[in-house]
Amino acid sequence: MFNDFIKFESDLPIMLKEQLIKCHKNIQPYIHNTPVLTSQSINEIVGTELFFKCENFQKMGAFKMRGASNAIMQLSKTQKEKGVVTHSSGNFAQALALAAKNIGVKAFIVMPSNAPQVKKEAVSGYGGNVIECEPTLKARTQCAQKIVNEEGATFIHPSNDINVIIGQGTAAKELLETHPDLEYIFTPIGGGGLIAGTALAAHYYGNNCRVVGGEPFEADDAYRSLKSGKIESNLTTNSIADGLKTELGDQNFPIIQQYVDQIIRVTEKEIIQAMRLIWERMKIIVEPSSAVALAALLKEKQSFQNKKVGIILSGGNVDVNQLPF
Amino acid sequence: MFNDFIKFESDLPIMLKEQLIKCHKNIQPYIHNTPVLTSQSINEIVGTELFFKCENFQKMGAFKMRGASNAIMQLSKTQKEKGVVTHSSGNFAQALALAAKNIGVKAFIVMPSNAPQVKKEAVSGYGGNVIECEPTLKARTQCAQKIVNEEGATFIHPSNDINVIIGQGTAAKELLETHPDLEYIFTPIGGGGLIAGTALAAHYYGNNCRVVGGEPFEADDAYRSLKSGKIESNLTTNSIADGLKTELGDQNFPIIQQYVDQIIRVTEKEIIQAMRLIWERMKIIVEPSSAVALAALLKEKQSFQNKKVGIILSGGNVDVNQLPF
Repeated sequence: MFNDFIKFESDLPIMLKEQLIKCHKNIQPYIHNTPVLTSQSINEIVGTELFFKCENFQKMGAFKMRGASNAIMQLSKTQKEKGVVTHSSGNFAQALALAAKNIGVKAFIVMPSNAPQVKKEAVSGYGGNVIECEPTLKARTQCAQKIVNEEGATFIHPSNDINVIIGQGTAAKELLETHPDLEYIFTPIGGGGLIAGTALAAHYYGNNCRVVGGEPFEADDAYRSLKSGKIESNLTTNSIADGLKTELGDQNFPIIQQYVDQIIRVTEKEIIQAMRLIWERMKIIVEPSSAVALAALLKEKQSFQNKKVGIILSGGNVDVNQLPF
Repeated sequence: MFNDFIKFESDLPIMLKEQLIKCHKNIQPYIHNTPVLTSQSINEIVGTELFFKCENFQKMGAFKMRGASNAIMQLSKTQKEKGVVTHSSGNFAQALALAAKNIGVKAFIVMPSNAPQVKKEAVSGYGGNVIECEPTLKARTQCAQKIVNEEGATFIHPSNDINVIIGQGTAAKELLETHPDLEYIFTPIGGGGLIAGTALAAHYYGNNCRVVGGEPFEADDAYRSLKSGKIESNLTTNSIADGLKTELGDQNFPIIQQYVDQIIRVTEKEIIQAMRLIWERMKIIVEPSSAVALAALLKEKQSFQNKKVGIILSGGNVDVNQLPF
């Protein structure tokens, strides 16, 4: 679909495969090898055979635990002593706090002052130091930089960091180890860490397995970035899929350009319908961002009839008091 | 706890164990051997090691599929030709319809006219013939009897039928086959079919494994029946646990008297809290009735510290538009 885009000429170095193997081995003590579920009734609706990798059952409730753990483990002893810092109001905040706690490292989590109290408490509950700032990207960046300067802590980006990307790729690695004949893997696309890691894993472990991203129309920076060949910003972020409002970066964009087959955009209504379908048919709780991958498949299901398709259900952290149905 | 109640002097005949083995083998093609999940954070809250048998992932979303399948399979060829009938507005309606469809038998499901349209459609969707009646127990019974008389169909009671009871017992049999060292199994108690079957399985397959029931204060017929030594009726049925409003019968009551250790009653608030805990920590969808077993354990957790406890999560059929939180 994106054949006309600029692509890297050379293949990715074999080094990345070795890093993926080593990463998966290293983070094993800190993550779940999450189950893969199937649903006969959803298979019938889509007309294809689906394998859901349930990262909603991951520790702290999302795949982010994988990348956060790997990024911290790559630090030197001196770096570990000084701690890590990130800015996030979402799952990466909790993931970095918990991963840091597991590995015995301090974590400074910069969160916007208007983040829900329950999220701040979750980060504190995992032992993270919550630092509040004004709810702007500029303030978040400045505040994190200040901690880097003052504490000597290492900044870890939630998605645009090769160690984070490789960590996220372990979910697809596990999926392909038990289901090596998958023809496609669908993931949601937000900051690009999950889909880039998935694309690497599919490249190294898949048997001609293609990777497809699902993205909200309301935060379609990745779709437009692939089209223009350069990193684009979101024009709106008015989506229920709150994990997908972030944007691509220079670390993950080239990987996505080279290894992602296509991105399918979906409406808010389609996201909610897919989320409801997963809840009602599979009896599992996924957050709206997770449902975007299935929504994308449902939208273009005619192109995927009778295939074997993996879907990464990215997380299950949802406020049950604020459901869209 | 109920040592002062009338109990059967003799043990149950060995025949029942053989029936349980045979039943489990027979119904295998029609049921899932559902997964057993654990939750570190709920373990920490309770102070014990919990093993959740996820019947919310069972076909049609509840354990009822087991008993319904077994009851139909016990019928003679002639009986099968004439079909089966039950009255239910809950999970047994769907279970009998689907089990009958699987086995190639007609199913007549008597449902109160005020049952939610979505439930009637679910039964129809499984191929069941929905017959509406006035929303009283008398009308339901009469209507079912009329079908027995006119069609020659066999009436199958949702809980007070030994073949249904044995079928429900296969969930605990599976749980004990993989976790033979459980010291307790908790189930919710409504009509008594699940807990009676569980008690039989624990008796035959457990290693001194005790069975405990959780029951809403608002529908506490079983608690009072065990206390008085005779089958009591509900004084109220004002509970969110809509699967537990039914009452014990002469087939399951003696089994419950002999093999159930105790029944713990819980408030509506405690049911909702336990349900929320399962949703938020385990990321799975259970219906309110399912949460009653965990609510009972939470209420009396001091008595179960450091034990190994199985919990049967009975079902996951909940209207996501009508959640209690």
